[in-house]
Amino acid sequence: MDTAVRDYIAAHRGDFFAALKQWLAIPSISAGPSHSGDVRRSARWLADYLHNSGFPVAEVWETGTPAAPGLPAVFAQWPAADPAARTVLIYGHHDVQPVEPLDEWDSPPFEPVERDGQLLGRGASDDKGQVLFHVLGLAAWLASHGASAPPVTIKLLVEGEEESGSVHFAELLRRERDRLAADVVVVSDTSMWAADVPSMCTGMRGVVDAQIDVYGPERDLHSGSFGGAVPNPLHVLSGLLADLHDAQGRVTLPGYYDKVAGLTDAERELFAKLPFDEKAWLATAGNSGAASGEAGFSTIERIWARPTAEVNGMWGGHTGAGGKTIVPKEAHAKLSFRLVAHQDPADVPGMLRQFVAERTPEGVDVAVTCEGPGVRPCFSPIDSPEVAAGRRAMERAFGQEILFTREGGSGPEADLADILGAPLVFIAVGLDEDQIHAPNERVDMGLLLKGAETAAYLWDELAALAD
Amino acid sequence: MDTAVRDYIAAHRGDFFAALKQWLAIPSISAGPSHSGDVRRSARWLADYLHNSGFPVAEVWETGTPAAPGLPAVFAQWPAADPAARTVLIYGHHDVQPVEPLDEWDSPPFEPVERDGQLLGRGASDDKGQVLFHVLGLAAWLASHGASAPPVTIKLLVEGEEESGSVHFAELLRRERDRLAADVVVVSDTSMWAADVPSMCTGMRGVVDAQIDVYGPERDLHSGSFGGAVPNPLHVLSGLLADLHDAQGRVTLPGYYDKVAGLTDAERELFAKLPFDEKAWLATAGNSGAASGEAGFSTIERIWARPTAEVNGMWGGHTGAGGKTIVPKEAHAKLSFRLVAHQDPADVPGMLRQFVAERTPEGVDVAVTCEGPGVRPCFSPIDSPEVAAGRRAMERAFGQEILFTREGGSGPEADLADILGAPLVFIAVGLDEDQIHAPNERVDMGLLLKGAETAAYLWDELAALAD
Repeated sequence: MDTAVRDYIAAHRGDFFAALKQWLAIPSISAGPSHSGDVRRSARWLADYLHNSGFPVAEVWETGTPAAPGLPAVFAQWPAADPAARTVLIYGHHDVQPVEPLDEWDSPPFEPVERDGQLLGRGASDDKGQVLFHVLGLAAWLASHGASAPPVTIKLLVEGEEESGSVHFAELLRRERDRLAADVVVVSDTSMWAADVPSMCTGMRGVVDAQIDVYGPERDLHSGSFGGAVPNPLHVLSGLLADLHDAQGRVTLPGYYDKVAGLTDAERELFAKLPFDEKAWLATAGNSGAASGEAGFSTIERIWARPTAEVNGMWGGHTGAGGKTIVPKEAHAKLSFRLVAHQDPADVPGMLRQFVAERTPEGVDVAVTCEGPGVRPCFSPIDSPEVAAGRRAMERAFGQEILFTREGGSGPEADLADILGAPLVFIAVGLDEDQIHAPNERVDMGLLLKGAETAAYLWDELAALAD
Repeated sequence: MDTAVRDYIAAHRGDFFAALKQWLAIPSISAGPSHSGDVRRSARWLADYLHNSGFPVAEVWETGTPAAPGLPAVFAQWPAADPAARTVLIYGHHDVQPVEPLDEWDSPPFEPVERDGQLLGRGASDDKGQVLFHVLGLAAWLASHGASAPPVTIKLLVEGEEESGSVHFAELLRRERDRLAADVVVVSDTSMWAADVPSMCTGMRGVVDAQIDVYGPERDLHSGSFGGAVPNPLHVLSGLLADLHDAQGRVTLPGYYDKVAGLTDAERELFAKLPFDEKAWLATAGNSGAASGEAGFSTIERIWARPTAEVNGMWGGHTGAGGKTIVPKEAHAKLSFRLVAHQDPADVPGMLRQFVAERTPEGVDVAVTCEGPGVRPCFSPIDSPEVAAGRRAMERAFGQEILFTREGGSGPEADLADILGAPLVFIAVGLDEDQIHAPNERVDMGLLLKGAETAAYLWDELAALAD
């Protein structure tokens, strides 16, 4: 059967890339209002394409309100022949990043061209190519099985605001929760370790943003008259921030690690198989020194699977030219806390307030503010049935062992897991060198076809899972 | 003899205040160029007044260069009859602070008026009143002794840039070192504890300004991709600043206290006699909490007689609205170190560099910059013959015990001591409530006359010292 899938994909690659190029020609930039018409055209194009590909349902979903409209998402559905079959929701996005600086592109960003097995153009990897391979994969499955419906009910949700903060996404998920209901969510918007090291992402970190404000005297004081005898808000703040980590690099908020799901031995072993070149990685950060962080964990583990506390900004007192001998009246810091499963963003403000209260000296007031509800971490254990099914599908397509990664960042995927209450499986074939968000974005055309092949196998693998 | 001095001063108070009002009417504001002509008129007025009062030498001394002129000082000299007598140099200044906000003055700042025993006007206390009482004091001494020359050679140096940073003062002292040579310098530009608690200042702290710059990655990094695994410059800087003080509030620079002259028991006892209301003092700082600082020292001792390290400003990373999840590429802090006798400002940069080097983790670079040579502390021991002479003169004038204070700030007085190599004696009758540098500056007219009386006695007391 795998041969039939492969043959179908090989036979239809021309049509597939022709369609993708059509879509990539639409400059669906979601940042700023100037391309909102193009984002709408992109949604319309996709809905039409899905409809023409056989999806019985293919709709453009508006977001926001009539008074303050957002950018549209696309929803499509193809029911399984068996009404008792599982439902799979595929998530991706059809909006793209801005293209500046334009003069660094080798060819115009919305006139896609092929070069050395790569397809160049804004959105080729992030995320139009990775959305579209699902359609080719499904067609290959149907053709190779001589079937007219998939073995699972397939839903697609392709949002139009991912590159501008997914501002209406959670609202949309809540509004359409019933129609989006699924047993598993397949996310196709991440990347693999390398072309020759195919891998699956199994989680993303959550995040909570916070600000600490330290207030001391009513006005800046002359440091000759008061220095050394009243608390200095910058000293207090420096002390708080220095105390955020202990000597082992662990975050000192009370109870911060209580709910952290530890790494399993199996996952650590699989992480360790990844050919990670720490020096090269440090060089991408412009850092010629050493990595550092929580003791007892590798760099990869620190970024992907351990929570952090990071000071993102700090200011107070005199910051202009020359000297000004003052005890400043206040000092401020912005922080972000990256969370891993199963930490709860709602716990962090209380922990931070307790941490601060335990360290606030007399004579200053310290305020802690957390912005919004934060983003929950999302995580799919590598031994979960859904991840195992995805891995088998990828191994059939790539013909080699599939390793595991995670993402250190945070995204709307957590909302999918939370609001829809379904496990996530990350199936993606993008690469770090695809230059997403940068000039000359590209995608490896051969890998996109491997993605389609994975998608063709995935439905059987998911359908075969015991209930 | 004291009666004769008092009678003379009482008889001539009308002429004295009439002259002072003339001088106060000249708006000799040294900040900015708009009043430079008035500063020159003020210098000319003083030189003429000194000449008319009997000083054989009374000159206006230009500062700076012809191409970049500064504001003029006034120099005067009245030799002792005995060529072997000591030489005393009196220091003060004839320039004044700006007067904004004008609408907060009860009467125009350069139209001096008397009210309830106070003389109101810009410069009344700081420093024209305190310069001029020396002339009345000398006249009283001459009249009461029937003499035509003082018992010590008296020199006056009255600068015109004190309120704008004394930018040419050290240069002037070096240029005119020979003509300014003196055995003791009498500084009349400070204040007493209170009208009913007359006191002498015995020292001022020095100061060194420094900046610490921490450089990490070449650009701001995404905290999701790098946070928790590379050094964060803001964490490093917070750690450095938090480490600047130990748990006892002592500064941790290596060797920082090695040259510090400890407080003597006598000085601590005299400090403790000052009626210091800590709550009221904290209230002037808008601080409702507790004082804090180096363990084992009172608030007064901390401000006046102990060295400090103060963070005056700090900045790095995202400081605007909202959150930005970055590991910032750099972080910066401005610091000032207040020094006491016999610390040397030239030692501080090396100590700070060593402190930083011992705490710099791999992966960041830390630069330490110190601005200029710093200001040396100045200090006259309370048991030195010159201070004791000054104290006796004040006790004769005030008829009660004279206590001691110091100044926590730093000023050009250190240059006088350093460049001229003479001990300082602070004789001043200003008060904290004189509102110097603020609207409605005033001086207690009775205290100015006590200042004149002190000055009349001071020459005998200094002349009587054993060589």
